[in-house]
Amino acid sequence: MDTPHTESVFRGLRDPAVRHAARFGARAATLSRLAIAGLPVPPAIVLPPEVTAGFAAGGAPDAGLEAVLEALGADALIALRGSPPSRDWGGPRAILNIGLTDATVETLAGRIGERAAWDLYRRLIQSWGAGVAGLDEELFENALYDRLKLAGVEGEEALDAGQLRALVADYKAIFEDEGEAPFPQDASDQLAAALGAAAAAWQRPAARMMRAARGAPEDAPLALIVQRMALGLGPGCSGAGIAHFADEATGAPELWGRYLDQAQGMDALMGLRTPVLLSAAERTRLGQPGRALEEREPEVAAALRAAGEAATEALGDVHSLEFTLESGALHILDAVPARRSPRAALRIAVSLAERGTITRDAALMRIDPRVLDDHLHPQIDPAHRRDVVGRGLAASPGAASGQIVFNPEAAMTLHAQEVPCILVRIETSPEDIRGMHAAQGLITMRGGMTSHAAVIARGLGLPCVVGCGELRLDARARTVTAPDGRAFREGDVVTVDGSRGEVLAGAAPTIPPELSGVFTTLMGWAGAVRRLKVRANADTPHDARVARRFGADGIGLCRTEQMFFQADRINVMREMILADSTAARQQALDRLLPMQRSDFVELFEIMRGLPVTIRLLDPPLHEFLPVSREELRALADEMDLPVSQLIQRAEELHEFNPMLGMRGVRLAVTMPEIYQMQARAIFEATLLVEERSGMTVIPEIMIPLVSAAREVELVKSRIEAVAGEVSHEHGRALPYRLGVMVETPRAAIRAGDLARSAAFLSFGTNDLTQMTYGLSRDDAGRFMRDYVNNGVFREDPFHLLDIDGVGELVLMAAGRARETNPQVALGLCGEHGGDPESVAFCEAAGLDYVSCSPFRMPIAQLAAAQAVLRQGQVR
Amino acid sequence: MDTPHTESVFRGLRDPAVRHAARFGARAATLSRLAIAGLPVPPAIVLPPEVTAGFAAGGAPDAGLEAVLEALGADALIALRGSPPSRDWGGPRAILNIGLTDATVETLAGRIGERAAWDLYRRLIQSWGAGVAGLDEELFENALYDRLKLAGVEGEEALDAGQLRALVADYKAIFEDEGEAPFPQDASDQLAAALGAAAAAWQRPAARMMRAARGAPEDAPLALIVQRMALGLGPGCSGAGIAHFADEATGAPELWGRYLDQAQGMDALMGLRTPVLLSAAERTRLGQPGRALEEREPEVAAALRAAGEAATEALGDVHSLEFTLESGALHILDAVPARRSPRAALRIAVSLAERGTITRDAALMRIDPRVLDDHLHPQIDPAHRRDVVGRGLAASPGAASGQIVFNPEAAMTLHAQEVPCILVRIETSPEDIRGMHAAQGLITMRGGMTSHAAVIARGLGLPCVVGCGELRLDARARTVTAPDGRAFREGDVVTVDGSRGEVLAGAAPTIPPELSGVFTTLMGWAGAVRRLKVRANADTPHDARVARRFGADGIGLCRTEQMFFQADRINVMREMILADSTAARQQALDRLLPMQRSDFVELFEIMRGLPVTIRLLDPPLHEFLPVSREELRALADEMDLPVSQLIQRAEELHEFNPMLGMRGVRLAVTMPEIYQMQARAIFEATLLVEERSGMTVIPEIMIPLVSAAREVELVKSRIEAVAGEVSHEHGRALPYRLGVMVETPRAAIRAGDLARSAAFLSFGTNDLTQMTYGLSRDDAGRFMRDYVNNGVFREDPFHLLDIDGVGELVLMAAGRARETNPQVALGLCGEHGGDPESVAFCEAAGLDYVSCSPFRMPIAQLAAAQAVLRQGQVR
Repeated sequence: MDTPHTESVFRGLRDPAVRHAARFGARAATLSRLAIAGLPVPPAIVLPPEVTAGFAAGGAPDAGLEAVLEALGADALIALRGSPPSRDWGGPRAILNIGLTDATVETLAGRIGERAAWDLYRRLIQSWGAGVAGLDEELFENALYDRLKLAGVEGEEALDAGQLRALVADYKAIFEDEGEAPFPQDASDQLAAALGAAAAAWQRPAARMMRAARGAPEDAPLALIVQRMALGLGPGCSGAGIAHFADEATGAPELWGRYLDQAQGMDALMGLRTPVLLSAAERTRLGQPGRALEEREPEVAAALRAAGEAATEALGDVHSLEFTLESGALHILDAVPARRSPRAALRIAVSLAERGTITRDAALMRIDPRVLDDHLHPQIDPAHRRDVVGRGLAASPGAASGQIVFNPEAAMTLHAQEVPCILVRIETSPEDIRGMHAAQGLITMRGGMTSHAAVIARGLGLPCVVGCGELRLDARARTVTAPDGRAFREGDVVTVDGSRGEVLAGAAPTIPPELSGVFTTLMGWAGAVRRLKVRANADTPHDARVARRFGADGIGLCRTEQMFFQADRINVMREMILADSTAARQQALDRLLPMQRSDFVELFEIMRGLPVTIRLLDPPLHEFLPVSREELRALADEMDLPVSQLIQRAEELHEFNPMLGMRGVRLAVTMPEIYQMQARAIFEATLLVEERSGMTVIPEIMIPLVSAAREVELVKSRIEAVAGEVSHEHGRALPYRLGVMVETPRAAIRAGDLARSAAFLSFGTNDLTQMTYGLSRDDAGRFMRDYVNNGVFREDPFHLLDIDGVGELVLMAAGRARETNPQVALGLCGEHGGDPESVAFCEAAGLDYVSCSPFRMPIAQLAAAQAVLRQGQVR
Repeated sequence: MDTPHTESVFRGLRDPAVRHAARFGARAATLSRLAIAGLPVPPAIVLPPEVTAGFAAGGAPDAGLEAVLEALGADALIALRGSPPSRDWGGPRAILNIGLTDATVETLAGRIGERAAWDLYRRLIQSWGAGVAGLDEELFENALYDRLKLAGVEGEEALDAGQLRALVADYKAIFEDEGEAPFPQDASDQLAAALGAAAAAWQRPAARMMRAARGAPEDAPLALIVQRMALGLGPGCSGAGIAHFADEATGAPELWGRYLDQAQGMDALMGLRTPVLLSAAERTRLGQPGRALEEREPEVAAALRAAGEAATEALGDVHSLEFTLESGALHILDAVPARRSPRAALRIAVSLAERGTITRDAALMRIDPRVLDDHLHPQIDPAHRRDVVGRGLAASPGAASGQIVFNPEAAMTLHAQEVPCILVRIETSPEDIRGMHAAQGLITMRGGMTSHAAVIARGLGLPCVVGCGELRLDARARTVTAPDGRAFREGDVVTVDGSRGEVLAGAAPTIPPELSGVFTTLMGWAGAVRRLKVRANADTPHDARVARRFGADGIGLCRTEQMFFQADRINVMREMILADSTAARQQALDRLLPMQRSDFVELFEIMRGLPVTIRLLDPPLHEFLPVSREELRALADEMDLPVSQLIQRAEELHEFNPMLGMRGVRLAVTMPEIYQMQARAIFEATLLVEERSGMTVIPEIMIPLVSAAREVELVKSRIEAVAGEVSHEHGRALPYRLGVMVETPRAAIRAGDLARSAAFLSFGTNDLTQMTYGLSRDDAGRFMRDYVNNGVFREDPFHLLDIDGVGELVLMAAGRARETNPQVALGLCGEHGGDPESVAFCEAAGLDYVSCSPFRMPIAQLAAAQAVLRQGQVR
């Protein structure tokens, strides 16, 4: 024998060492905790993995087994089960009822009756024959079939003691004919062979591959549990079942489950006989006749409830219990964490923490931040039969139904009539934003998770499916056709499931979002733990109000350009763009000034002194011009300009790569008046709000698309001049903070220079990712799936921050910035600010804040708290 | 006095310390060298800058001056001149003839005659009065004017001795009336005051600002030279002039210059009287009557020639000499480096090195690599009167004339008729390449130094002006209109000056390129010095032949896509792109294979075993499709496809930001067949050439636009499979090298990973710059000038490598790559490979090679040699 072992390496369940699941496996560890907590767990001996490994290497179990059997009770039957560290990793089939022989079956018959004893014996021979001796299980099935036919009955439960005794004889004959040896007539021989077989099964290539695919290491250990059987067959109330203690959907405490008389193990779930329900409520709900277990055996139900409570306390979570009743006595054979929906998980975690079973920190760690989406948006009722007509990317969570419209104008018309609608587009552009505001949901044919449609929809909390290329849109005919040929016209009703990326025919019923007390409680705990501030990306008063509702620490990104797309402003903006002289441009800007000022006044008032970071105009100017000839013609009429002039100006503004073109601070270098107007609007709004309400507003002004320190110096000096003017005009001091958006790799590299002139740097990781990869998020959708499937990218880097590339630039920039300006504040704004892994990176990088869509904020808040807890930081 | 000084701080010209121009100034240092070399330099004393500074601070020159005067000859006249470190930094006006008084003028008259003596005296009083005493110079001019009127003569040279004596009396009366004191009658008083005035003039704010603008430091020193006068007035052959010793245009040795009898200083250049020419050849050429100096005074000419030779030896370069003849004796008053054209500079440097005056290294350092362009391309004759009709960016050097054409087809038609033409476009796309091959020059309205037009033109050596927005192109009317209103139609002749960025009306005469022996000699020396290999970017056999002619160390970048734009291939390529199944795509690729193979066979044969780096297909596929509806319709006819299908496919391929889209290795991940075809073509060509010619070819295959190591692994495994197949089919080993183009910031960051799978990394700094700045080179042209003018960028970063940003990524990548793979070869390909400063960076970064347009190679080769010399590296 390779691994010498003595009795001392075998562990009793109450041995504290057995609580270590990594060594003794999840089942053994669970049972150990339950046994120590005083739950009625049958006694067991646990064989550590090195002993199991010894068996697999051919070492025969030695005489120590006698002592094991002795310890579990001289004439007790024995169950052998595997206990790997994770329940997902498989493991050998359980062998029950070990110890039955021709001799002991008679003794047992005296105790629990002839029929039960012989039934157990034939069960042992069959499972031992197939699982240990390696005989073809069909041989046993055939013998049983013959015997049932002979007896003229349907199921084995109808066989009487004599028939079972005859079946045992048949089974033993199979051994004589097919096996290498007769069925062993000694308990310790049975156990020794079963142990060897279990250990060998663990090492088989198929088993190794299966568990490797589930993340098991090469040398995953297997412990074995040798346990005294609780017999579910026999006199009195005997049987087996599974008991649950919480509603799977809501997490509310409730006893429910399945039970079967005269049964072992998982028989109750096998569908052989109709099981008994545990709870009267469930029985009523399902309309099942007869009585539930709690009605039949109230004291058993009470014992189960007590066991459930005790298991919850012992294991620190609500568990489902596998139990056996032996003549009315309850035995607990296993406990597995209760299944639960995301909503249930939240309720359970909070209630466990509230009653002191676990700490608040543990409760925070229990919730996957991503599933908070479920709480924030309506979801399609899981009971609804889904008629899916198209699949795309789940770009913005939630579900909504409405009439199909194909352009933003139609959406606005229906919105005015209070008819819900779903906007369907090839892809969206800033022109569509008003339509998106008016629609209940959005579907696009093209684009990825960070396409314009996806980003705006997430910001609005609008259910959205993008890249739904399966659907064929015929813009002229105003139809959209599903892969199965069904065509939907304008006015037909569909449902968008943005959580799953599906489009459904018709209106599906939804469950409303639940921002319950439990949710609020958890977010409160997260707020007390997290170090990172979480701000909102908010462009409008509506966004800002949502942000306040979710406890934003401020606005981290207000995209001023969104304000110019509003109906009353877009044409003034266009006049500014089309101006053929500085004077004409200034005239248009003078008209935009009061509009911007009132925007900022409203934002500042809503945010009540919290920081508001305003990004100066960023997109290339051509984004504000219409694209189609017809629209250009209409605009020319409206502006009383020759259409040719308009077309020429639009062509002049055309860019090959707008992402890398004349935008952001580059606009300011060539047309300083725009930023000057914006700065004045911000400063005047600041003083207006201060004068009106007495609250202190310190606006943060952010310069986009910087790549050189000199750009910042240029803009800074101009903004300082505007601040000086406004301060002088109002006779009041005007504190403000000027910051730089780090969204080009060069800005990251030169962050040390930038920080000299900046009070804060904000990493715009959307653009930074585009430029670091040389990858346009608008164009990447087409091949991103290939890339992720081929393992080229672990995940879409616009979704999950690329820590190895973009992350390195962020760390480099943070270090360099703090070196030249230790006071500089560092933030991250963009999609990644709402992704838990990316938030954890920001915590580790020591950033001061993240900023994300208002609807992603709870996710970021929880992720920020978890990052602190994971780092074991002091609170 | 602040700075005490004694005689010992004054230096004689032969004092070796005076040779240090940084302290004693350029003039003093030059004269010192000449004096030491035995040239006839009048004796002088140099006052170091701290003494001058003491004067400026108000310290009066002390008794030491007496000794200075004594040292220069008791009754000699004295000249005072400033000597700043750079001749560009200005300096006080010279005061000549110091020492003349009412008493000494009479003595001098005895020696050189009455008239000359009184002329010198009145010159002194006037220049001292204006320059030292601060009197209004007009007072003296008015007195002179009155005296001329009284004498009834035109010029002062016509005044006789008595009239000059009377003029002196007038001048002295001006001192009596306007000055604070009469004109001083003591030599050392005159000198002391002149020194104080010179020192004070140096410190005046206007003088400081002027020299600061020319790069002088805040505390620029000024030395002063007190020198015995050589009198150009007097008996015998007396006068002053300037002598040159090399032809300005060609650098050929030749004595020429100007001389004036009875003159001082620069009188010969003032145009007061017609000067005497030095050389008979020049006199004949200009048709000037009379005799040249060398005809009149052959021994003076011989002495000048000898002095020119001696000065060249003493100063290590050809200089022009300022000289004075005093009764036939030659005195050298100054020497300044001879003016020379770029071509002359080259000839002079090489001949100096060949005759041993300077080392070859020094000759290499004398030539600005940028001016080699002049040798490589025809230039407009400088004598031609330029009729400039438009200005843009000098995108590709050289000059050419031809008929205007507005589309590539017209260019090809004229080319077939052997009529030179100039292609005029708004901007160019790959579709235009055939037209560019057919044209003699190129003009675009839009685009920057690295626009498509500029890059391709430089590669072709085609004169090109881009971004010529002043011109208005009317494509429909086929006219282009200049800002002055002149319109040019198709067929009108213009000239493109790509070296100056100008468009000229009509055909301008050009000087052909000169790849003379001198050029070849210098490039040979550069080759012996440089460490960096210089390869060519060459896409065609023509390019490769040019590259060989310029001594390329291989091809560093062969852009395979250029091969697909040829007339016989573009439609096969389009079939491949439009294929609706993998099989159809493979069919088109099978037809492209032999074409690509023959391309590579030709390239390998031309390069005769030198390395050839082939970049696999890079551009997005839509670049191969026509853009206009008409062209699409024509293509649909030709391919027998419905036009709607073509339009739909083109729309599918449309990208928002093609630069950041589906291109490079991304094509390979989604359509592996393309790279597989290219790899097969390369491998088959390799074995074909080896079999045919017996030479060894080791192709280098380069993967573009990589951003993750997994992309390389994917492509590498596929290419290895193709290599295995081809090797097996031919029964021959097939060595090749696989490399990665580092052109995304992420590739630079992850270079350590990439180098594990790559034999070489090549920095594609065009794209790397675009992505690091977030700046499209096609779109940046519009604001690049604003950016450079505002000092935001020191230079266009597409032109001069941005060492602070992009350069840091290159250094990071080089370090990381060598860490994981010390054998990895590192190169840079792209525009920067032909820029001297960028080449110097590559040398410092330890790269192995740069690759640039064939026509930029000499520049890179020389810059690489200079970088080695500048670093003082061992050869």
